Amino acid sequence: MKPLILVTNDDGVYAPGIRMLFDAVQTLGEAVIVAPERDNSAVSHALTMSRPLRVQQIDTHIFAIDGTPTDCVTIATRKILARRPDLLVSGINPGPNLGDDISYSGTVSAAIEGTMYGIPSLAFSLGGPPPHDFEVAAAVAWKLASLALAWSLPPDTLLNINIPPLAAGAIRGIRFTRQGRRMYQDSILETFDPWGRKHYWIGGGTVRWSEGDNTDDQAVSKGYISVTPIQLDLTNHNGLSYLERNWKM
Amino acid sequence: MKPLILVTNDDGVYAPGIRMLFDAVQTLGEAVIVAPERDNSAVSHALTMSRPLRVQQIDTHIFAIDGTPTDCVTIATRKILARRPDLLVSGINPGPNLGDDISYSGTVSAAIEGTMYGIPSLAFSLGGPPPHDFEVAAAVAWKLASLALAWSLPPDTLLNINIPPLAAGAIRGIRFTRQGRRMYQDSILETFDPWGRKHYWIGGGTVRWSEGDNTDDQAVSKGYISVTPIQLDLTNHNGLSYLERNWKM
Repeated sequence: MKPLILVTNDDGVYAPGIRMLFDAVQTLGEAVIVAPERDNSAVSHALTMSRPLRVQQIDTHIFAIDGTPTDCVTIATRKILARRPDLLVSGINPGPNLGDDISYSGTVSAAIEGTMYGIPSLAFSLGGPPPHDFEVAAAVAWKLASLALAWSLPPDTLLNINIPPLAAGAIRGIRFTRQGRRMYQDSILETFDPWGRKHYWIGGGTVRWSEGDNTDDQAVSKGYISVTPIQLDLTNHNGLSYLERNWKM
Repeated sequence: MKPLILVTNDDGVYAPGIRMLFDAVQTLGEAVIVAPERDNSAVSHALTMSRPLRVQQIDTHIFAIDGTPTDCVTIATRKILARRPDLLVSGINPGPNLGDDISYSGTVSAAIEGTMYGIPSLAFSLGGPPPHDFEVAAAVAWKLASLALAWSLPPDTLLNINIPPLAAGAIRGIRFTRQGRRMYQDSILETFDPWGRKHYWIGGGTVRWSEGDNTDDQAVSKGYISVTPIQLDLTNHNGLSYLERNWKM
């Protein structure tokens, strides 16, 4: 049986990144897109429970849902697909998902949800400013999807993959990395509405990264494809003994 | 100088849980509420970057923002408060935030954002179905907030605190726990719109938890207050060597 591959994203079913990803992984098995109707960037791991969700079949292998990436993975896995997918690929996001920022990312959240369902899941993001040319990134996604099908993932772990915005020949290879820490971002613009009331607009700014070896941001800035294994268990296990030792109750 | 305590939540500035939390921690320092105008349950770590955000001062120490919990923490820390808070408390959420579900939680996400800013951060949730009586939970929150101010937290780590829905005398104590795994939730209702089109409604269902020692869900179900240290670093560090060893490229 050919591998069943669920393709999703947070930018919506009509985004160019997901179509390139779909075309790339189609050669590895039966690919099905289940993605949000509209752009859902920065929705993080939001799940829609306040209203019913509509599924629209757009093409033989393409479905759109009026919800979030997490909604799409849940409904695809439980209601649309005939069996549990062998692989989930999310993206390709235009713009990086590195360090602490992955906790805001809809692209990564879709892969988290897939991992919760036991599906090996990969999140793909392409660095650099717009316009994004997804051709090299799609070839990288094909390569990593085929590696994931061949060699599998660590348990309860997804891969967060960031691709540098370079020509194929300029990419230096693949690095397995750890999540970096974003230390500072000068990123709240003060602006005014037509009635002169102050508002705040979050975004932009200059990012600074922590020092440290082998982080995702360093790998990409040096021209490597960064592959970070991200786990579902958020417990700080050392923190447990810290609390037992230090908290006098 | 008295400790500065930022109080936030995901249910909105008018929710009863945040008012009880505010009253409780006021006795420990200078408390300031900065919370969403409206209910933001299950928005997870969403950050609003598509539009400017409005801050309304409702009372001397109470501010509302037309955004998410993460927006509130960012703007409070960077624009509203005169200095970095000594403590952040989020909640009290009506309903538990246990196991994998914490990744959807706005209550927990506010504490993640606080931790990114270097603020010791606690997320409080009260188990059981509505209506929720927050009185015992507020006393627990006071106790744990004073412990956090006295003994501090492990680095880059927040505490996810779940309180069982019991009378004060029936609570058996505090347990430091690890995050449980939700294995299965029968939780998609099929429904129809007025035109007979099928829709899916996510929510409800029966939760099953993984076996295993000392998990958050077990502690609460046995009548203990569960305190789980949650870390910002999502890297599966063992997963790194797994990939280095097993992936033949």
